[in-house]
Amino acid sequence: MSDVDQSQLFEFLCRMGDNTLVLGHRVSEWCGHAPVLEEDIALANTALDLIGQTQMWLGLAGEVEDKSRSADDLAMLRDVWDFRNVLLVEQPNGDFGQTMMRQFLFDAWHLAMLKALTGSCDDRIAAIAAKSVKEVQYHVERSGDTVVGLGDGTSESHRRMQKALDLLWPYVGEMFVADAVDEAMAKAGVAPDPATLRDAFDARVEAVLTDATLTIPDGGFAHKGGKTGFQHSEHLGHLLTQMQWLQRAYPGATW
Amino acid sequence: MSDVDQSQLFEFLCRMGDNTLVLGHRVSEWCGHAPVLEEDIALANTALDLIGQTQMWLGLAGEVEDKSRSADDLAMLRDVWDFRNVLLVEQPNGDFGQTMMRQFLFDAWHLAMLKALTGSCDDRIAAIAAKSVKEVQYHVERSGDTVVGLGDGTSESHRRMQKALDLLWPYVGEMFVADAVDEAMAKAGVAPDPATLRDAFDARVEAVLTDATLTIPDGGFAHKGGKTGFQHSEHLGHLLTQMQWLQRAYPGATW
Repeated sequence: MSDVDQSQLFEFLCRMGDNTLVLGHRVSEWCGHAPVLEEDIALANTALDLIGQTQMWLGLAGEVEDKSRSADDLAMLRDVWDFRNVLLVEQPNGDFGQTMMRQFLFDAWHLAMLKALTGSCDDRIAAIAAKSVKEVQYHVERSGDTVVGLGDGTSESHRRMQKALDLLWPYVGEMFVADAVDEAMAKAGVAPDPATLRDAFDARVEAVLTDATLTIPDGGFAHKGGKTGFQHSEHLGHLLTQMQWLQRAYPGATW
Repeated sequence: MSDVDQSQLFEFLCRMGDNTLVLGHRVSEWCGHAPVLEEDIALANTALDLIGQTQMWLGLAGEVEDKSRSADDLAMLRDVWDFRNVLLVEQPNGDFGQTMMRQFLFDAWHLAMLKALTGSCDDRIAAIAAKSVKEVQYHVERSGDTVVGLGDGTSESHRRMQKALDLLWPYVGEMFVADAVDEAMAKAGVAPDPATLRDAFDARVEAVLTDATLTIPDGGFAHKGGKTGFQHSEHLGHLLTQMQWLQRAYPGATW
């Protein structure tokens, strides 16, 4: 482990934690607004799982950084340019179908990533992954079932799910593109090369979308810039104003 | 003027300034999103007028309060329970028609109020009103014309305008209800009793809505709690997170 550049490891951990933080916040926006009570509770539970995972990832990131920043500090006091989540998770909820499509596409990547991370040479990372993977196994089964149910549902639900897939598919590619941080993690045995996760992702996604009678859009275009922090979409800043406002307005406030 | 309770005068000035601040912010949300370029520019200009009026009202409020709070401090560093705007202006934009209906209903009250305030016994207030009334005369002509154009337009635009009116009408009543602050202002000759503005409002609104082929909903129910600060709608807090975030995250930041 001494071979791993600690600033790169910090970056990697922020990516994991920011993905779960931002998606967790987005999903929490549904609380009290979902179409039926069971879905409302399920979405809130998913959000809680993701925020719980965030606590672990950003907690470890703070330790690795060694500048006395807690998970809360990293979540609530960084500005948009310091966030490292992929663009997919910061996209707006849209309707319930769009939210579930975003969830499924993320879950399919997330599960493959966490499975690989259970074999990390960094025991701390392997332990977080082992704890998270059980939750995410459930997330992907649930989101996949919903994608099938709505895609192969009424003509209206089918139309909406195809629209959601067309909208979100260009955000899939970013999850599998490696940069210097990923290469360093892969070389050190900390994390997989993201490209190696694509087969498992494709197998699951193609099976579910086929059952859902949905068509993957043509073309390999992928929006990028989230996980490197180079260019987030306009949506992340607005999300942060709401997520961070209390700590910004009342610094150091505690429950 | 020495008879006027200065804390009640402060309250009254916050009501005037918070109305223009919150509506100005709401209208500014359209910037770059309006259906056609001319409307986009017109909305941005309206927002600027309202924010400019805010600067005057809250600037005077800060003087009256005499606690060294500037207009910016009052705008950016109060929390939701200290805002005194009517509920109408904090309601979401909805579609363009809903925004213009909200604007028209507010403008019709605002013009009547400002006309009365030009005769205020407080010269500072009369001066702000005299400056603002020219802008608002134009606002109400413009919003009224748009309400007529869309209400008496296509079946789709008519449907949307009637829906907007049905949604927003229950927020009209609050503008004309007096409380102890209003009574004190009226008694001192600072401001009119709000109830006295209703006839001018009704005359204008009924004429425009008739031309627009729209029907005022039955029933006298009115949401209240905005101008007293007793109970704002859920929307104001979210608006403030966005409006105030920069000053909250970077206290004291200047251009």
